[in-house]
Amino acid sequence: MRYFTEEASAEVVNERMGPSVSPRLSRIMSSLVTHLHAFVKDVELTESEWGVAIDFLTRTGQICSDARQEFILLSDVLGVSMLVDAINHRTPGQATETTVFGPFHVDGAPEREMGANISLDGKGETCLFEGRVLDVDGRPIENALVDVWSDNEDGFYDVQQPGVQPPFNNRGIFRTDKDGRYAFRGIKPVAYPIPDDGPVGRMLAALGRHPWRPAHMHFLVTAPGCERLITHIFVAGDAYLTSDAVFGVKETLIVDFKPVVSPSERWRAHFDFVLAPATASRA
Amino acid sequence: MRYFTEEASAEVVNERMGPSVSPRLSRIMSSLVTHLHAFVKDVELTESEWGVAIDFLTRTGQICSDARQEFILLSDVLGVSMLVDAINHRTPGQATETTVFGPFHVDGAPEREMGANISLDGKGETCLFEGRVLDVDGRPIENALVDVWSDNEDGFYDVQQPGVQPPFNNRGIFRTDKDGRYAFRGIKPVAYPIPDDGPVGRMLAALGRHPWRPAHMHFLVTAPGCERLITHIFVAGDAYLTSDAVFGVKETLIVDFKPVVSPSERWRAHFDFVLAPATASRA
Ligand SMILES: [Fe+2]
Ligand SMILES: [Fe+2]
Repeated sequence: MRYFTEEASAEVVNERMGPSVSPRLSRIMSSLVTHLHAFVKDVELTESEWGVAIDFLTRTGQICSDARQEFILLSDVLGVSMLVDAINHRTPGQATETTVFGPFHVDGAPEREMGANISLDGKGETCLFEGRVLDVDGRPIENALVDVWSDNEDGFYDVQQPGVQPPFNNRGIFRTDKDGRYAFRGIKPVAYPIPDDGPVGRMLAALGRHPWRPAHMHFLVTAPGCERLITHIFVAGDAYLTSDAVFGVKETLIVDFKPVVSPSERWRAHFDFVLAPATASRA
Repeated sequence: MRYFTEEASAEVVNERMGPSVSPRLSRIMSSLVTHLHAFVKDVELTESEWGVAIDFLTRTGQICSDARQEFILLSDVLGVSMLVDAINHRTPGQATETTVFGPFHVDGAPEREMGANISLDGKGETCLFEGRVLDVDGRPIENALVDVWSDNEDGFYDVQQPGVQPPFNNRGIFRTDKDGRYAFRGIKPVAYPIPDDGPVGRMLAALGRHPWRPAHMHFLVTAPGCERLITHIFVAGDAYLTSDAVFGVKETLIVDFKPVVSPSERWRAHFDFVLAPATASRA
């Protein structure tokens, strides 16, 4: 064992690990320490800047609750969530691209009938979402589950407004038919700001960044024998497409929402999902 | 503005900063994002590992309180605190070396008479600490303030045991005389574990590391016209000198504690402090 020196700082820390540490943990922590020390050296972090960082991390942890996850928000706005998503979903050519899961999914949303309306608060402009779920060879997948969620017309998810929005407002699970088809009605989604009244919001402001996400509908699509697909579709023309606060937009996920004249909806959005075959997961 | 890609991930995030961000903040955040993304790519972090990290950071924030700062502990055990100390105190040749401040200093400790005993709970083996405070030319500094603190015989600081230890137990401020001399009595310090019942303690265990710090007395020495000196002296022969959980040991700070036969103490420790001249601080 050797004493700490500025020059060998990361090596000294990493040499301290015991002999029976799991190889994967050892690899992750060694790399983390190396990169963290390289950052501190690169900017020659001052003691007062270190103090600001300690205070920031502490406040970020302390604002977390069952209804709020500020560290996920931090990961999102620093592009880390999208990077982890990208690394873990290098999807084969035809498969639909993934994007961030986000903090607003809820387990246990009700399965609804083909074509049902998930907007229970009656707000917003009704939109028909429809398309098919296919495998990479273009074959329809029957009985795929299409779990969808979005904000309401005011830009809030139901879980952000308990007691204000009906339970499971703008949520539902739909099952594909024998042709792989799904269909449901919701609202044409609206852009919304991520929660910006905490440490992460103040950081974004200090960085000259806005907290807005372009309008999108969330999708979690599952089927036996296929990789789980977590993605959004985005509304073409949204002002925030190129400046999504969490970097979630991919060009292949932008959809033209077409105006229609129909008693049951004002807009239509068509999107086909292509699921990659299941592989042994690394995690 | 361009969309997120795995290849250009850090650049895409950093390009998002606004034009009027403070140059220093811009530099720090760009470097942080670059190194953080490099780490994630280096280890190809999985989604479940990312989840473990989010959970770890959240728990680390939530255990913090007025009496406990788990993020400082995390910084300490990853060697970041010592690295920041090293970068900000590249002391000129003769000046005493610095080490970590630690979380247990308390403002407002009483000034005590030359030679007074700071151990108020009557536990432990009494030790005379004495020496001089000098400038880099070897001239004694009169009226320097020597603020000292240590754990008690049971390995706890008074602030860790409110109601158990007397207030300001093992703390005091001493003033040097015209020859630059200081002297006080305390206990021969004992090794202690950093608080290890939280997320950081569990991390140390997973890394095969122990939570112990070698026995030490803390010093904060100040004098007009001099840089503030934050350091420890360590007890030679301590079993944890080469494996300090927070990497605080420097060879020049290890002191031979000499056994003596005296009515007023069992040990003596001699150490002279050399203060660097004050410079314009970067922070
Ligand atoms: Fe969303
Ligand atoms: Fe200490």
